[in-house]
Amino acid sequence: MKVVLIGSGNVATHLATAFQANGHVILQVWSATLKRAVDLAEKVSSEPIQHLSQIYTEAELIVISVKDDAISEVVSQLEHVKAIVVHTSGATNISVIDGMSEYGVLYPLQTFSKDKPLDFKQVPLCVEGNSAACTAKLVAVAKSLSNTVYEVDSVKRRILHVAAAFACNFVNQLYVLSNELLEAQGLDFNLLRPLIKETADKVQHLQPLNVQTGPAVRHDEQTLKNHLELLQGQPELQHIYQSLSDSIKKSHQ
Amino acid sequence: MKVVLIGSGNVATHLATAFQANGHVILQVWSATLKRAVDLAEKVSSEPIQHLSQIYTEAELIVISVKDDAISEVVSQLEHVKAIVVHTSGATNISVIDGMSEYGVLYPLQTFSKDKPLDFKQVPLCVEGNSAACTAKLVAVAKSLSNTVYEVDSVKRRILHVAAAFACNFVNQLYVLSNELLEAQGLDFNLLRPLIKETADKVQHLQPLNVQTGPAVRHDEQTLKNHLELLQGQPELQHIYQSLSDSIKKSHQ
Repeated sequence: MKVVLIGSGNVATHLATAFQANGHVILQVWSATLKRAVDLAEKVSSEPIQHLSQIYTEAELIVISVKDDAISEVVSQLEHVKAIVVHTSGATNISVIDGMSEYGVLYPLQTFSKDKPLDFKQVPLCVEGNSAACTAKLVAVAKSLSNTVYEVDSVKRRILHVAAAFACNFVNQLYVLSNELLEAQGLDFNLLRPLIKETADKVQHLQPLNVQTGPAVRHDEQTLKNHLELLQGQPELQHIYQSLSDSIKKSHQ
Repeated sequence: MKVVLIGSGNVATHLATAFQANGHVILQVWSATLKRAVDLAEKVSSEPIQHLSQIYTEAELIVISVKDDAISEVVSQLEHVKAIVVHTSGATNISVIDGMSEYGVLYPLQTFSKDKPLDFKQVPLCVEGNSAACTAKLVAVAKSLSNTVYEVDSVKRRILHVAAAFACNFVNQLYVLSNELLEAQGLDFNLLRPLIKETADKVQHLQPLNVQTGPAVRHDEQTLKNHLELLQGQPELQHIYQSLSDSIKKSHQ
C-alpha cells in the first residue's frame, strides 16, 4: 500500500519501519517539526513534507500517529484526501475521525522506545474500521505487519489501554522503586534482573493468579510487618506496599 | 559435596535438582511430611528421612529450606551435626542459626514454581557465611550451581527481599488486575502478554527510569482522568491507579 505517515514519535518510527519492511511504500512523512520529518523520511526512503495539504492524492492509507489531543486538529486538515485515515491511539475513540468515507484505528499494543529494537511481527495490532469493508481492509494491512491481529472496538480498546497502564507503566514504576531500594544500599540492579525476567516469562503461558509467590499470598504476617518497618520513613513506598499486599490477599481469598 | 536437604517446597526442589545436576550428592532429604520427602528424594536419587537425628555424620552441607518461622526449630535439632548449616531465606538473619562452628545463608533470588522449569545457572545466589573461611566455602559451592554469585550480608539481604516483593510479587499482582480488566470485557490475556514480556525485556539492559512510557510520565492529565473514570465502581483499582501514577510523576520531577 501507499502510506503517508503523520507523526515522528516512537510509535510512528516503529510503524514506519514495519510498513517498509513488509513491502509497503511510505510515500511521505509529516511531522510538526520539519527536521524530525526529514530524519524519519530518510530512514524509510520517503519524502518529508511540511504541510498536510501536500499529501499526494494517490495515498491509500494515512496513519495519524501524533499525541492524542492533536489528532482532531490533524483530521481537520485532511478534508482533501481520498485515502483510508487511521489513528494509532489506544485511548481515543474512532469517532475523532469523521468526514472521510473510510477511517479507523490501528492500535499497536506495545511499549516502544526508540533505543530498543523489537520484532514488530510479535506486536498485537488492534483494528477497528468504520464499516465492515473498511475493517476487512485494515485487518489485511495489519496482518501484513504482524502475526497477531485483533478486531477491537473503541469501548473495549479504552479498557485495554487502562489494562496496559497496569501491566506496563505501573510495572515499570515498580522496577524503578525496587532499583531505588537497591541503590540506597549500594546493591546492583543486576541482582533483580533475572527475577524480573522470570516473573514476566512465567505468565507467558500460565495465569498470573496461579503463579503468585511471596509473603502476601502466604499470609505471612510477620514478614509483611517486617517489610513495612524496613520502609519506615518512606511513606510513599509503605503505602504502595500496603495497597498491593492487600490486593494480593483479596485476589486469593 | 555431600548435601542434606531439609524441606520439600519450591526452593528446596529447584535447589535439589541444581545440586544433583552439578556433581553434588544429595545424601538425604527431610520434610515435615514424610511422603513429600520420599517424592523429592526419589527425584534426586536420595534417601528420605523422617527424623533430623538420622542425618549422617558424613554430611558436609545442610541446607534448610523451610518456612521462615520453622527455621529455628530445625536448627535446634541439629546440635549433633558437623556440617556447614545454611538457610535459604531472604527475610531471615544469619543469626537464626547458631551453636554451629560454620553456618550461613544461601539465598536464591528468584521466583520458583514447581510447574515452571528454569535455568538455575541464571539464578543470582546471595551468600553469607559466619566467617571469612565459611563465606569462601559457600561462594565456591554457589559458583558450582550458578553463574551469578553475590556476597550479601543480612542487613542488605532483607532490603533485597523487600525490593523483590516490588519487582516480582507486586508486579505479578498488576498482571492479575490487568487480566481481570480484560476478562470483564471478554478480551484475551494474550493481547497483553507481548507487552508484559517487552516491559521486562527492556530493563534487562536499560534503566527502568529511562524507559517509562504512558500517560503519567507524559503528564497527560486528560487520559489519566479518563482512565480513573473508566475504573469507576472499582475503588481498589482507582486507588492503585492513582498511587502509581503519582509515583511515576514524582520519579520524573
